[in-house]
Amino acid sequence: MTPIDRPAKNPLGSLSAIYTDQYELTMAQGYFKSGKHEQTASFDYFFRKVPCDGGYVVFCGLDTLFDALDELSFDDVALEYLSSEGFDDDFLNYLGDLRFEAQVLAPREGELVFPFEPVVRVKGKLIEAQIVETLLLNVLNFESLIATKASRLRHAAGDDRMVIDFGLRRAQGFAGMHLSRAAVVGGCDSTSNVYAGLRDGIPISGTQAHSWIQSFDTELEAFRAYAKTFAEKCILLVDTYDTLDSGVPNAITVGREMAARGERLDGIRLDSGDLAWLSKRARAMLDEAGLDHVKIAASNQLDEHVIKSLLDQDAPIDAFGVGTRLVTSYDCPALDGVYKLSQVDQTPRLKISENRVKVNFPGLKQVLRLTDPEGMLYGDCVIVDGQDEPTRMIHPFDDAKHVDIGDYDKTPLLRPVMDGGEVLVERPSPQQSAEYARSQMARLPQEHKRFQNPHFYKVGLSEKMHCLRDETHRRARKTFLSKDE
Amino acid sequence: MTPIDRPAKNPLGSLSAIYTDQYELTMAQGYFKSGKHEQTASFDYFFRKVPCDGGYVVFCGLDTLFDALDELSFDDVALEYLSSEGFDDDFLNYLGDLRFEAQVLAPREGELVFPFEPVVRVKGKLIEAQIVETLLLNVLNFESLIATKASRLRHAAGDDRMVIDFGLRRAQGFAGMHLSRAAVVGGCDSTSNVYAGLRDGIPISGTQAHSWIQSFDTELEAFRAYAKTFAEKCILLVDTYDTLDSGVPNAITVGREMAARGERLDGIRLDSGDLAWLSKRARAMLDEAGLDHVKIAASNQLDEHVIKSLLDQDAPIDAFGVGTRLVTSYDCPALDGVYKLSQVDQTPRLKISENRVKVNFPGLKQVLRLTDPEGMLYGDCVIVDGQDEPTRMIHPFDDAKHVDIGDYDKTPLLRPVMDGGEVLVERPSPQQSAEYARSQMARLPQEHKRFQNPHFYKVGLSEKMHCLRDETHRRARKTFLSKDE
Repeated sequence: MTPIDRPAKNPLGSLSAIYTDQYELTMAQGYFKSGKHEQTASFDYFFRKVPCDGGYVVFCGLDTLFDALDELSFDDVALEYLSSEGFDDDFLNYLGDLRFEAQVLAPREGELVFPFEPVVRVKGKLIEAQIVETLLLNVLNFESLIATKASRLRHAAGDDRMVIDFGLRRAQGFAGMHLSRAAVVGGCDSTSNVYAGLRDGIPISGTQAHSWIQSFDTELEAFRAYAKTFAEKCILLVDTYDTLDSGVPNAITVGREMAARGERLDGIRLDSGDLAWLSKRARAMLDEAGLDHVKIAASNQLDEHVIKSLLDQDAPIDAFGVGTRLVTSYDCPALDGVYKLSQVDQTPRLKISENRVKVNFPGLKQVLRLTDPEGMLYGDCVIVDGQDEPTRMIHPFDDAKHVDIGDYDKTPLLRPVMDGGEVLVERPSPQQSAEYARSQMARLPQEHKRFQNPHFYKVGLSEKMHCLRDETHRRARKTFLSKDE
Repeated sequence: MTPIDRPAKNPLGSLSAIYTDQYELTMAQGYFKSGKHEQTASFDYFFRKVPCDGGYVVFCGLDTLFDALDELSFDDVALEYLSSEGFDDDFLNYLGDLRFEAQVLAPREGELVFPFEPVVRVKGKLIEAQIVETLLLNVLNFESLIATKASRLRHAAGDDRMVIDFGLRRAQGFAGMHLSRAAVVGGCDSTSNVYAGLRDGIPISGTQAHSWIQSFDTELEAFRAYAKTFAEKCILLVDTYDTLDSGVPNAITVGREMAARGERLDGIRLDSGDLAWLSKRARAMLDEAGLDHVKIAASNQLDEHVIKSLLDQDAPIDAFGVGTRLVTSYDCPALDGVYKLSQVDQTPRLKISENRVKVNFPGLKQVLRLTDPEGMLYGDCVIVDGQDEPTRMIHPFDDAKHVDIGDYDKTPLLRPVMDGGEVLVERPSPQQSAEYARSQMARLPQEHKRFQNPHFYKVGLSEKMHCLRDETHRRARKTFLSKDE
């Protein structure tokens, strides 16, 4: 594709800063009024549960976040609005000059990440680190969700079949702006979404709907007209009237006519009925007609489970068009990522909960990814930032469980990606991030990719991290639960 | 609020036209090349299934659609991109001059609509009516889904309690741009989403997160600082350390301090634990302390079922903050709306299916809403546009079932809303549409609002419509299934 002037990367434009919950701004005003706003604070983005009862999450959304944070500022329209909502003038003056300059640590897009470990770390002025909470959660939760779903579809379809995002019509409104890039990062080959093609340079595809067929007096006439206009990429939708009695025979007629002209019919698309049965019958009919090069595409309420089941039954399907269930992550439409304060100045902070699983890990942290001698992923160890390499890893919620990790190769997961308002890293294309995701999926043992009850990937704490967490917890309970007056 | 220069109503800007599936454009080129593109065509938007197993859908999204269709054009960026993707020059020249000028019929935002009936009708040149399919589906499916979910939350909460959209952080990316207005149309009082407040003029609300509390050395200090900055609207989050042992006692201390200064603590917010038990205990503690004016707000994984269950147990909760389960419509994240060709020039068209429920209603149609003498909704009758008032209504999929409808008042549901590129109707605010939705909900019999297995709302066909459907179906089967060569 020739280079094209792309639309603004950030459709929120100058309003990124107010794409946020009001409480970020009331808190910001509170910090300002309390003189705390320029204290140094650190927040962690993490999640507790893998969507769709899966075994891993594909991290995505960093690129969108860069665009939004890069331009983050409160312009006159925003400030005037906030003033009309009762915010304080001094505070709004301060806000008008504020830019996002905090340090951000994150993995690459396409990285595999797991519950409880810090995935993104933001360290800066309390006020700037706080006000980006909602925006950061919105972008990372959504794009990681979709990339993860796409990865599951890819896993079900195997490496040799196409998986195409067909879902814009059922996407949640303007979620469609970014979902297709996330789908490609996770493993889709292409999208029907033209906006995403232009915006993100990802491959687009699409042929015709039932309305095309219906608009002609006969199906054959509709097929012929399409083949005439799109001889180079012709896929015919065969289920408008009757797949096996009308659609496939008419497609065969047109396929032969194209062959006689030295052209090739690329494929047919099944969009209803039992896709296993129909694809086998259609394959046989096409092969018998000498059209064994004609591929079979299928769509209609597909998800990873249906694809797996179709292929388990040897359905000869070459391409899967996936809509609603991909673009909304239908069976689990949200990743539960949160953003928690972990340190103010030099003091580690946490939120207490009766439920130990809900107590966050305090302080500045790093994650070491552990790989075995064959290069396969073994687990992740959360450490205190800057500590010596640990040799033991402790279960985060069961002290009695620990493992030796001396023999594993250890690589830091979080790298500085923004600082002082600058993006510090190369910005890979969706296709490059997809390639990275694929390479990491190849290193993840099969048992973590199972759809049913996958093996839990080990995330633990170094002894030092474990001590810091328990110490901070004890101190917090002592201080906060003593009915201070 | 003083009037403010609002951001562009359509964040897609000049790229609305390519916020679409590629096949709309391949078909458009096909129509153009086949000389069919300026035939007059009519399409219907309708859905087959009410989300969340509910009894009704609240129609929403028209306002967003107006903005997008009003500006619809293919600019140079789009045309250059499409050219690089192999589209034809003649076609792109034509596309560059194309504006959306079709006639659109639709109900008001906030109207209650039901399965199988045409909800929106688009009649114009085949090419213009076709290319808006994806955009129209994307916008109407999503906003109607969210308005419907919000209406269910409102129904569960009753009229006297607040329901607030808290979900931007879990919204599906830039879905957050429009979801809050849909939530308000459906029945929410306000939103945490500042962007939506500015863009759509809806009320915003929000107080503080756990990070506010954690950032201070003690909870009491955090509460005092917040009360000092926001004396006029102070709601304290009481579950950071321990709701009943720390949060509520500290809130009472601050509430009394405020009272001594002549101020009022507005409320406390519970965000974890058993909300029924905690709200009862907290209510008793507040009342005992003479703070019976202090309201109790609750949040944490709420949906209509949890709200109903809490209120069934007399939980003294005054306001519900609903996040993930509202903004993604968690248990059903898509409305299955489709857009089907129903007529080309004077010929009614349909898609055949083995499943009669999937055969669309051909031809130009209107819907008559039937109300009984008490003004309550009885059912909807789909008629042939312009036909005489029907006296009988036939079940759409079971000819044996029919009812007399002579005695019911009949009002057309679909009114012209756009024509020749102009919006023909007043554009109500979200609050006005919400008021309309509320008035219609009051006319819907209770049995359709039940969450479990609600009574099916009658949608039927006039005899004339019934004949047209069956006749078109017979003709289509005869023509299309005769293996034409």
